[in-house]
Amino acid sequence: MAATLNATERWSLLLATGASFAVLANTFQGDGAPLVASLAFSTLAFSMTYAFVRWSGPAFMKAGLKGKDMSKIPAKEIPESMGAVAAAVYILALMAFIPFAFYKDIVAATSGGGNRDVVLTVTEIETGRFLHRFPHSKLSSYQSALNTLQATTILGICDDILDLRWRHKFFIPAIASLPLLIVYYVDFGVTSVVVPNFLVPYMPNQARLIHLSFLYYLYMSALSIFAPNSINILAGINGLEVGQSLVIAGLLVLNSALYLVPFPGNPVLNHAYAVRPHPATDAHLMTLYILLPFLAVSTALYMHNKYPARVFVGDTFCYVAGMTFAVVAITAHFSKTLLLLLIPQIVNFIYSVPQLFHIIPCPRHRLPKFNARTGLLEPSVTPWTPERPPSKLLTTVFFTLEKLRLVQVTVDPKTNRISATSNLTIINLWLVWRGPMKEGQLTRELLIMQTCVGFLGLFIRHTMALLIFGIDNRGQNNPV
Amino acid sequence: MAATLNATERWSLLLATGASFAVLANTFQGDGAPLVASLAFSTLAFSMTYAFVRWSGPAFMKAGLKGKDMSKIPAKEIPESMGAVAAAVYILALMAFIPFAFYKDIVAATSGGGNRDVVLTVTEIETGRFLHRFPHSKLSSYQSALNTLQATTILGICDDILDLRWRHKFFIPAIASLPLLIVYYVDFGVTSVVVPNFLVPYMPNQARLIHLSFLYYLYMSALSIFAPNSINILAGINGLEVGQSLVIAGLLVLNSALYLVPFPGNPVLNHAYAVRPHPATDAHLMTLYILLPFLAVSTALYMHNKYPARVFVGDTFCYVAGMTFAVVAITAHFSKTLLLLLIPQIVNFIYSVPQLFHIIPCPRHRLPKFNARTGLLEPSVTPWTPERPPSKLLTTVFFTLEKLRLVQVTVDPKTNRISATSNLTIINLWLVWRGPMKEGQLTRELLIMQTCVGFLGLFIRHTMALLIFGIDNRGQNNPV
Repeated sequence: MAATLNATERWSLLLATGASFAVLANTFQGDGAPLVASLAFSTLAFSMTYAFVRWSGPAFMKAGLKGKDMSKIPAKEIPESMGAVAAAVYILALMAFIPFAFYKDIVAATSGGGNRDVVLTVTEIETGRFLHRFPHSKLSSYQSALNTLQATTILGICDDILDLRWRHKFFIPAIASLPLLIVYYVDFGVTSVVVPNFLVPYMPNQARLIHLSFLYYLYMSALSIFAPNSINILAGINGLEVGQSLVIAGLLVLNSALYLVPFPGNPVLNHAYAVRPHPATDAHLMTLYILLPFLAVSTALYMHNKYPARVFVGDTFCYVAGMTFAVVAITAHFSKTLLLLLIPQIVNFIYSVPQLFHIIPCPRHRLPKFNARTGLLEPSVTPWTPERPPSKLLTTVFFTLEKLRLVQVTVDPKTNRISATSNLTIINLWLVWRGPMKEGQLTRELLIMQTCVGFLGLFIRHTMALLIFGIDNRGQNNPV
Repeated sequence: MAATLNATERWSLLLATGASFAVLANTFQGDGAPLVASLAFSTLAFSMTYAFVRWSGPAFMKAGLKGKDMSKIPAKEIPESMGAVAAAVYILALMAFIPFAFYKDIVAATSGGGNRDVVLTVTEIETGRFLHRFPHSKLSSYQSALNTLQATTILGICDDILDLRWRHKFFIPAIASLPLLIVYYVDFGVTSVVVPNFLVPYMPNQARLIHLSFLYYLYMSALSIFAPNSINILAGINGLEVGQSLVIAGLLVLNSALYLVPFPGNPVLNHAYAVRPHPATDAHLMTLYILLPFLAVSTALYMHNKYPARVFVGDTFCYVAGMTFAVVAITAHFSKTLLLLLIPQIVNFIYSVPQLFHIIPCPRHRLPKFNARTGLLEPSVTPWTPERPPSKLLTTVFFTLEKLRLVQVTVDPKTNRISATSNLTIINLWLVWRGPMKEGQLTRELLIMQTCVGFLGLFIRHTMALLIFGIDNRGQNNPV
């Protein structure tokens, strides 16, 4: 890959950059339209990521951050860990957005160290739903999100460089989520969840809310560990890591946009100029502010990582992507919605458990096998040697799963014993179901599957929630 | 170096860790004593840094992060960029400290996204000067400091790995300081400075305050660029980078402690229980909270980096150290005091200018030359070839500086022309003055010099300030 931009790319990016600056200069004055500024910053972030990924390739290769793409003829070396560039630009965009999203408190006197001796409160002027900045009190939520994403980036880069062991990697997101959870504790400390309808009669005093206390922090921590790691293990073919992140981010943006667009029955529409907007509006605006630049940098990265890949993204990207989702789900309180969008990742994780926890052997890499003769990807397998064959129980399990078409089993005709089983990832499973195919086609089909499952998840969320919880914060005035 | 801890080290660190946890468990309950918690976190951070630096050495070497110590016989390879470990532990300690330093707002209801629908304000109980937590409004200052330090770490690691060019390196701190400056803008926006007494008569309306507006942001940005880079160029011999940072941090801690310790005339003492503490008290408490864990991780790092070095610290450490100083100076408003403590760095920078800006040739490394025969360090030199001799003007300048003992000049006896001049760093200058010496001795003397100059700076700050500004926030009630 040439490390320079061609003429079309250069002029397109310069044009986009210029337009973004023009929009930003306009929105900074006056009370601003933060959503417009966010879109401008996202465009800028796209341009920067696109150019920086291209330009920094040789420096990454020189520093040893390179990998061989084994599913190509000839297998060539390309820059690795390029997600770090996207993450850095993303964080920069989130930082620069702060003065566009929050009211500037007029502090008349200070003695330093965070002392605001005399504060003149800005009169909040509501000129419309999208045209208001957040009050100062929300800044700490936003900053904790930023701190968590930065910590994720630092630990991700460490992992990319030092090649940490699996048992260390696993807890990286747990540490990185600390600033988010700690500020959540200091800032809100709300740990109550809504009780499903059918359980209410069994609750003490028929309570509709249950206070989970420290269990809620465990739940949030588990979510922050799961989301990044689950994306990191659904990987190995060109474009899949970034592609799935784009799909999930896109669906989350759609979901949040649903809360903003006026529709009959939406209280926001009815009282738009009379009262403050629906409380959930701000939560979902915040989600958009965090996700839009993420979508932008990921798109720029995807254009370099899609089949045939010119760069690899590395662990940093997977961690930052998953953590971004966890961050918005936690700060805007829609963790259940996120889990519905992560169904393919959840299935892949559960399916992988026997290998991840070494119940059956797990090779270093489980990505599909490239057949150089046909140019197609085939399911990769774990061989079972005659010296260490699968146990009797395991053999029965494998044959049963094979009948259910949930694994591919190869039997040695001489000994009549299992000689190999396909590796337990849904990428291999897809190849078992659909037969060998080209790498680009495989990524495309998996991303379509992710999109369909995601839409189904959102449908379930917005139709079933009312049945199960009696409250849906989409169309009701009751904030949850 | 063995990558394990010996028995003494292991048990000492375990004991310190256990004691820290015990203290933390105690201070977390009740209204807490944040300063005690900060000391406990610092002890913990020391133990972690000490152990992690030792343990991660082989992983760093394997990842290619290693360097040759040229001033030893034989020149052996040791791990490089170990400052990143110290920086990571430092950031972790600052994060974990949040719930100990800030009141927990009791939020009864929230709709996510930073909405605090119902907030019950905690009644602030002042039980003594050190025994109160900060109100919630200070959290954003603290978080912006954390964000800036994390951004510095990310960019520092990039520099360590990718070996950026000088013109790119220079602006790393400018980008990293963005979150601090942006939150300063949103949060305070105070850009006025006190006018020196002798200038007051010439001010319009004899104003004692001047509003610098955007110039103040330029000044803060310049400070954030200067502090990290100035430490980064006063480097090259074992222990000097960390040593000078320890001296500066120690003196800053001393300076801030001066504001807390009661003494006659201190308004804090007189009204300790009657009114809120002096405004500057909180600013300097915040400084201590940020500096104490920095001192701790730097001490652990120094024990591995001091002569004879077992690890190198890398650019990450220098950037994070300098940025830590800039952060406290900006948030607690004592940038002039910091500049007084950075006098050796300022002198070294000015002395280096002709080489840094390529007015005269600058070799890749300017560290002192190791004389393998004597085992001593000598000033390193820039050779002047007969083909490219110094100009006539430059020759005059060099001979004048030599007379002032500010440079070492070697004259070729055959041509009577300058054949070499010592490189322009105060490390080489010190060797010109004091003659060749052992590496450990050189570091020690330079650190003693830094300490003496620092004490002189603090003395000037607290005696001259009253003469120049008419206001000293040390002993007066008038906050600046």
